[in-house]
Amino acid sequence: MARVRLDLAYDGGGFHGWASQPNLRTVQGEIEAAIATVLRLDVPASLTCAGRTDTGVHARGQVAHVDLDGVSVGTLARRLRRILPADISLLHASEAPEGFDARFSALERRYVYRLNDAGRVDPLTRGHVVAWPRGLDTEAMNVAAGHLLGENDFASFCKKRVGATTIRTLLELSVARSSNDTVETTVRADAFCHSMVRSLMGALVTVGEGRQEPGWAAQVLASRARDPRVKVMPAHGLVLEEVVYPPDDRLASRAIEARRTRSPR
Amino acid sequence: MARVRLDLAYDGGGFHGWASQPNLRTVQGEIEAAIATVLRLDVPASLTCAGRTDTGVHARGQVAHVDLDGVSVGTLARRLRRILPADISLLHASEAPEGFDARFSALERRYVYRLNDAGRVDPLTRGHVVAWPRGLDTEAMNVAAGHLLGENDFASFCKKRVGATTIRTLLELSVARSSNDTVETTVRADAFCHSMVRSLMGALVTVGEGRQEPGWAAQVLASRARDPRVKVMPAHGLVLEEVVYPPDDRLASRAIEARRTRSPR
Repeated sequence: MARVRLDLAYDGGGFHGWASQPNLRTVQGEIEAAIATVLRLDVPASLTCAGRTDTGVHARGQVAHVDLDGVSVGTLARRLRRILPADISLLHASEAPEGFDARFSALERRYVYRLNDAGRVDPLTRGHVVAWPRGLDTEAMNVAAGHLLGENDFASFCKKRVGATTIRTLLELSVARSSNDTVETTVRADAFCHSMVRSLMGALVTVGEGRQEPGWAAQVLASRARDPRVKVMPAHGLVLEEVVYPPDDRLASRAIEARRTRSPR
Repeated sequence: MARVRLDLAYDGGGFHGWASQPNLRTVQGEIEAAIATVLRLDVPASLTCAGRTDTGVHARGQVAHVDLDGVSVGTLARRLRRILPADISLLHASEAPEGFDARFSALERRYVYRLNDAGRVDPLTRGHVVAWPRGLDTEAMNVAAGHLLGENDFASFCKKRVGATTIRTLLELSVARSSNDTVETTVRADAFCHSMVRSLMGALVTVGEGRQEPGWAAQVLASRARDPRVKVMPAHGLVLEEVVYPPDDRLASRAIEARRTRSPR
């Protein structure tokens, strides 16, 4: 058995998220089926990814691994590219280095959330830029973001799962205008719990609209409980842009450490 | 009757081009039907646009005009936005100044053509960036482009129409990398004849691949006849980005001049 690393991009608009579900079109399901087809497998090989994106969330830098028997990575990639649907792109396929685990070896995930706060839709980017009807104060959003950085319990921004910690290290949460009316928010963390990025965005947008002061974000964080005033923002504005891994000689130790401390997404 | 100016964006992927055709979904057809619906017109009002885009070609800065009886532009815009399909966006609606003609008053049209020359598709932009399997030499393309600038007979790059001139003034044709593997070509002219931008792109790509020297573009231009080696590039890489008009006091004279010298698109 050899472990293969797959770097992937996809348009989440046509999928019920990453994770396989019976009778629903999912990214994992499509890729596992494609691998089974090109390798003529009786039992599909199982994919593990770095960030299990929700329904409608996109990726430009998703990473997954799969363990396969005696396969040339080049041949696999060529055949997969021939049959994968147009909304999934295999960016790169490679033999994974010793100790590599797409999920547990990852050091950080980077997401970008895009809004047009003039409420206007560019039809060419409508699938991944959210039209927002009210103007946003990006300075206030960045002040609010500053209150959330670092290692914190993000229970206020997560869908709680029994037995799973909600402590995460938020490495970056920064808001910038990429054009006159487009607001891009970059979010980096060691890992995210469920719906965390879109809840963080909901809090920032509430501040950006002036409905709460920036300090309110700190109160929400401290409460460690879901606040109904924190909306979960629409999925289609969110793109998993990148997953960062340590140098090869630290892949295995990183995976051991991550498995011990949390059940990351 | 008052003339209304409409600034429009659309995803050309779902349309058989701008111009109305029986039983086919077109941009003009959709907008004329929407106007007829919101104004309860028995006979649809006819739209005139600055650049009649072909099947699959997109727009971010299309301009059209329509003559309507006693209509508040604000009300028209609000109602149109409620019923226009998601792949058409009404960016702006305004009362047209005296003498304005969306087609004949225009001074220039600006198009951008986008290619990914690593052959990789970003699923999020696959609708408007063409995946090209071979790397392109943008310097050679720019040298070739330089041979085509100015007022020329572009018969070699046009689908000929009886009685219509193919003389145009090419104001800009410039190739640049907007990222590692994305090549953006900007094309500006007073007007374009049919398939001209995509034929110019075909010639540039042939040079960019090294299959012809840059000087070949000058030969093709001078031949004033369609050359089978000049391919018409795929429609979906092309976006009408902007239409430029003169100051209001020159709109009418510009329209008279343009009508006299050519039948522009």
